[in-house]
Amino acid sequence: MSRIIALDTYDVRFPTSRERDGSDAMNPDPDYSAAYVVMRTDHSSLSGYGLAFTIGRGNDVQKAAIDALNHHVAGLDLDEVIDDLGGFARRLIGDSQLRWLGPEKGVMHMAIGAVVNAAWDLAARAAGKPLWRFIADMTPEQLVATIDFRYLSDALTPEEALTMLHAAAPGKSRRLQQLLAEGYPAYTTSPGWLGYSDEKMQHLAREAVAAGFRTIKLKVGMNVEDDVRRCRLARETVGPDIAIAVDANQRWDVPDAIAWLHHLSDVNLAWVEEPTSPDDILGHASIRRAVSPVPISTGEHTHNRVMFKQLFQAQAIDLVQIDAARVGGVNENLAILLMAAKYGVRVFPHAGGVGLCELVQHLAMADFIAISGKKDDRAIEFVDHLHEHFVDPVVIANGCYIAPNAPGFSAQMHTGSVEEFRYPDGQAWCEPAHTARAS
Amino acid sequence: MSRIIALDTYDVRFPTSRERDGSDAMNPDPDYSAAYVVMRTDHSSLSGYGLAFTIGRGNDVQKAAIDALNHHVAGLDLDEVIDDLGGFARRLIGDSQLRWLGPEKGVMHMAIGAVVNAAWDLAARAAGKPLWRFIADMTPEQLVATIDFRYLSDALTPEEALTMLHAAAPGKSRRLQQLLAEGYPAYTTSPGWLGYSDEKMQHLAREAVAAGFRTIKLKVGMNVEDDVRRCRLARETVGPDIAIAVDANQRWDVPDAIAWLHHLSDVNLAWVEEPTSPDDILGHASIRRAVSPVPISTGEHTHNRVMFKQLFQAQAIDLVQIDAARVGGVNENLAILLMAAKYGVRVFPHAGGVGLCELVQHLAMADFIAISGKKDDRAIEFVDHLHEHFVDPVVIANGCYIAPNAPGFSAQMHTGSVEEFRYPDGQAWCEPAHTARAS
Repeated sequence: MSRIIALDTYDVRFPTSRERDGSDAMNPDPDYSAAYVVMRTDHSSLSGYGLAFTIGRGNDVQKAAIDALNHHVAGLDLDEVIDDLGGFARRLIGDSQLRWLGPEKGVMHMAIGAVVNAAWDLAARAAGKPLWRFIADMTPEQLVATIDFRYLSDALTPEEALTMLHAAAPGKSRRLQQLLAEGYPAYTTSPGWLGYSDEKMQHLAREAVAAGFRTIKLKVGMNVEDDVRRCRLARETVGPDIAIAVDANQRWDVPDAIAWLHHLSDVNLAWVEEPTSPDDILGHASIRRAVSPVPISTGEHTHNRVMFKQLFQAQAIDLVQIDAARVGGVNENLAILLMAAKYGVRVFPHAGGVGLCELVQHLAMADFIAISGKKDDRAIEFVDHLHEHFVDPVVIANGCYIAPNAPGFSAQMHTGSVEEFRYPDGQAWCEPAHTARAS
Repeated sequence: MSRIIALDTYDVRFPTSRERDGSDAMNPDPDYSAAYVVMRTDHSSLSGYGLAFTIGRGNDVQKAAIDALNHHVAGLDLDEVIDDLGGFARRLIGDSQLRWLGPEKGVMHMAIGAVVNAAWDLAARAAGKPLWRFIADMTPEQLVATIDFRYLSDALTPEEALTMLHAAAPGKSRRLQQLLAEGYPAYTTSPGWLGYSDEKMQHLAREAVAAGFRTIKLKVGMNVEDDVRRCRLARETVGPDIAIAVDANQRWDVPDAIAWLHHLSDVNLAWVEEPTSPDDILGHASIRRAVSPVPISTGEHTHNRVMFKQLFQAQAIDLVQIDAARVGGVNENLAILLMAAKYGVRVFPHAGGVGLCELVQHLAMADFIAISGKKDDRAIEFVDHLHEHFVDPVVIANGCYIAPNAPGFSAQMHTGSVEEFRYPDGQAWCEPAHTARAS
């Protein structure tokens, strides 16, 4: 019998602001960071890995929130955790004293997500399967048992979820073969950061198309003339057959979004992402009605299943960005994927950052095989940053994510990377100028 | 010229779970706690005080989040902060790296609220006025300048706010006299904690009525038969003229709330508080429609002005509970009070906990004088816990809050209380059994 011994946590920060990678209208100088957690067991070769993604300052607060969960985890029997991943997540979310800090939102909820994801990683490793396959191989009953339906029953009941999963079951083995043969479509944001020059954007857009991507995304929202110029330039560069999406990163009020988007009406946008506050469900619905047929999306900052439920109920969005490390882990994302399937909303997972590509690919692939049955009308975001720090980095070929083979959730970082970029004492941060700026 | 030197922070916890004070359907054993902050200046007699209220575990995470704001505050010129409390709050909320941890929600946003409130405390102390008076004496232009209207302009513009405040101005001096003469109505939750026996509840309800309270509130949501029995007993005890409210503390899904409340239809409820997830705007609207005319309310866990905006827009609630320490400080609460006034929603401030009565009375009194002009159709919650730890505790007479006289926001705690209840090293926590349970 193996036991979980402890959560080891690390404040890992990459100085990405030095190159303005990741710059957008709300985030001019992010230092992509991870509050990284290792769920250590008494089995020397078996640990679970998870992370919360942040953009620099506050990563220590995020780490402290993960540490606050240690007492729920230390000493647990490993098999009991693996056999009841639903109960495991519910115990963390149900800690009444910690719940007050959200509830189910912000730092504390992201901490729960990191720990819950580490438990899924551990479970998939113990089963010798990549996580997408571990989920896809669950029976409908097993999958539904992992989900907390609290606050969802006016939109999705466990019985409805079971019916959906049973209906999808006959096609699973065919879709498994299809995924292995084709991969899962990706789109790329690499050309589109606001801090890049027009020339750099065009160069990277051409590279993206040459590499097989069918969709690119540009950041917008700082200056409307710049946005019009950059979008038109991008359209000239990639031609009419490549989809162009834009991402405003919450920059606008509702009336501003509507006015701004009228200026971009000739670019034929694939979608407009995060036009306003991620909390503004009714605002997204208003924007969507006003700029129809331009598709509206959000989700990377949507903090839990209750908010996603309302985005679907209010018909506020045309497509949805799930994020592997914002909500309370795999369990909550499965609830969100089931609701998206029920409401017919296409899923375009958010990625980039630190390890978000590595993580979220598993959720999209499991969704394709076991839940929605769809992949060719959707795509996973891809940003070519920081993958070298992961033991099982994503593999992209011809604009698609190739299904990972290695057991687990792909969140494990190289020990050397954790050491080098640990804040504030890692080598990457030891030059005084950098330490001063990030403190 | 004075400067702010630093934020001193303290993890203060009271072992309230030993007596089951504060127990409700979601929070069976809270240890009422405060992440307490002292904004220290180089002026020996002048500091600002603020706090984030939590219920035990995680108070250290909350403290760490306040510490993460220190670099925004240390070294600032005191007069510049006092003269531009809007700019001060916007700088904290606008830290793009920290914003990722919310945005504007959870641990990080409560930390901002504590620091912003400490700055208002400092400003009111410097002016020699209690905070309610400091706000009430602002010109409409000064008050509007403190508010961040981002994401609000589809519901409330600065121009509308100015018009409302100018319209309210002529009655201010009359209402000031009225407040000083009458106080502000209070209601009490002291009888209604779930952990109390029927006899204790009845006894405390009789005491409340004898003390002049016109409204009492009971916790519900654990067991429907118990709730029906307790509500009927309370009605028998207080008679038909005292209002009885109930608080479900987020216990129900939407269909459950509707079914449960039909069992309580003969009690003539003044309102039903937090029937479901605080995030579920559309859910509250559905419940309200289904149980009409029973009034529905929420707000103590509503995490920012964007959520309050939607509660008003969706006609989801009949009355609203603001909380002084959940959102981003006085500035954001002023925005919420202005929206409540515009949408005609009565304000019943949430209090209790640690210092929440002390704080929120100022907001309600300022609202009466300068914004809504109303107090007799509303009331501030009162719970008789832990006031002895505050230097300027609330004064209740004949069921009303008496307007405080002392300069500031009433958040300052006695140094001895901070020492005694500091976790984990204060004397109150040094018995091993208690330390073990709360860790």
